[in-house]
Amino acid sequence: MNSKYKVLKFNSNKFENFDDLVSIEEPLEISLKFKENDHWVTKILSITMRTPGDDKDLVRGFLFNEQLIKDIKDIDTVESFGDKVGQYNIQNKILATLNNSENINITNIKRDFMTNSSCGVCGKSSLDALEIIKKNKTNPSEPKITKEIIIQSPNILQENQSEFSKTGGIHASGLFSSNGELVNLKEDVGRHNALDKLIGNTLINDQLDPGAQFITCSGRLNFELVQKVLMTDIGIMIGVGAPTSLAIDLANKFDMTLVGFVKRDSFNVYTNNKKVIVG
Amino acid sequence: MNSKYKVLKFNSNKFENFDDLVSIEEPLEISLKFKENDHWVTKILSITMRTPGDDKDLVRGFLFNEQLIKDIKDIDTVESFGDKVGQYNIQNKILATLNNSENINITNIKRDFMTNSSCGVCGKSSLDALEIIKKNKTNPSEPKITKEIIIQSPNILQENQSEFSKTGGIHASGLFSSNGELVNLKEDVGRHNALDKLIGNTLINDQLDPGAQFITCSGRLNFELVQKVLMTDIGIMIGVGAPTSLAIDLANKFDMTLVGFVKRDSFNVYTNNKKVIVG
Repeated sequence: MNSKYKVLKFNSNKFENFDDLVSIEEPLEISLKFKENDHWVTKILSITMRTPGDDKDLVRGFLFNEQLIKDIKDIDTVESFGDKVGQYNIQNKILATLNNSENINITNIKRDFMTNSSCGVCGKSSLDALEIIKKNKTNPSEPKITKEIIIQSPNILQENQSEFSKTGGIHASGLFSSNGELVNLKEDVGRHNALDKLIGNTLINDQLDPGAQFITCSGRLNFELVQKVLMTDIGIMIGVGAPTSLAIDLANKFDMTLVGFVKRDSFNVYTNNKKVIVG
Repeated sequence: MNSKYKVLKFNSNKFENFDDLVSIEEPLEISLKFKENDHWVTKILSITMRTPGDDKDLVRGFLFNEQLIKDIKDIDTVESFGDKVGQYNIQNKILATLNNSENINITNIKRDFMTNSSCGVCGKSSLDALEIIKKNKTNPSEPKITKEIIIQSPNILQENQSEFSKTGGIHASGLFSSNGELVNLKEDVGRHNALDKLIGNTLINDQLDPGAQFITCSGRLNFELVQKVLMTDIGIMIGVGAPTSLAIDLANKFDMTLVGFVKRDSFNVYTNNKKVIVG
């Protein structure tokens, strides 16, 4: 599932407006209904950020892969429910009903799941994560950067990664001054961890200066990464790969400039392109 | 942080043994100590899979980015604790103590975090995820595949992705027969979701035949992805990118063949290379 977004594209040494297709990212709240002591109980199991489509298979696979059921036949039904929400008008809630709770280790399920999660967006207790952020957010910064700095920053990031050249399998987040100088860099196998490390280190060393800085991340940009950067008031975020729909929507809502798909001589500006110096 | 792993490398049309550097992935259990009604309370906040190093900054950034604190000065201390565990002999537990619980919305923290998470490995309630799997696991399958099939499978995956050609920003997981034929494929912005969708759909359609199948994933391979595939008894897993240390360790423990870094004419076999036909 994808949607058309307007982007300012830099390519072949010129800027042009362009319609780009972006993969949809939306939260899915997974609930489980099971029998416990002869009573039917329904609990929220998990919230995951997914591309809508094949939601029922996602739930079936999740229950099996996370060992909550031993056999696919332990699931009686899987049904989407609730209002059709958001700009894509889809149901973001789904309920799996077990037909064989005798086989299920309910204690295990309760201990491991049946709770709110704790990694980034999955950790939000409801689908109103955007609203929570909105309430707490102040104003993003307004530095301006050039096309040369945008194109150079992923190279500078990679050149300064101590681990990437060795293993080829680690993400990085870098804090840059708006004139393109690398201020701080952290690496981790998890993109969200690299960003947490970067921001934690930046804060403890009192290096944060949102009015004159931007952040560049290896890999793709999702909701969780944009949300973390928004907390710092840094107003420009660059990703080497593609952004998701929700990453763009979130950046747009808070006037962050989101740049993606940075190659040797091209990139896309997805939101608020007035912070990019054209010409 | 990285470590040396022995791999069977296919390159320039020949196989050779090779030492490869791999990025370390290890669980980190984050606890928070705060004052509530004049009493000090300590709770596990989150478990994340991270590359060891900068753990204190990770915790600082996590608390700030997830809006659990408003100011970095709200943290009094961050200290690693517990036994040095695992083959890398590191502490995998860390405690942040808040000095200003008055500023903290404890109710919010309790609702959103203070629980076990629900996305994959993060969702395990303790660091013994490997042991839980071990108890439930039976035997992985033993098909054999050729080098040609290994090299072709990521191309077949990408050619059959309906979304990737449009957005360039979506992951895929594909189920293949051991003669290289694509059986099923699912896409999602989240790698773990693509795999849950694939396995869920495969199970409900009764397509699973572990003795004659393998799974190929776009992107890198981490603990969570290997764990999900292990549940199906499929014994060969291929990733386009690099595996983490824990992905390799887990595959090794359960005799899964793990292949990574698949390029046009090369790949690395990280574990159990007897399922790959050499010659």
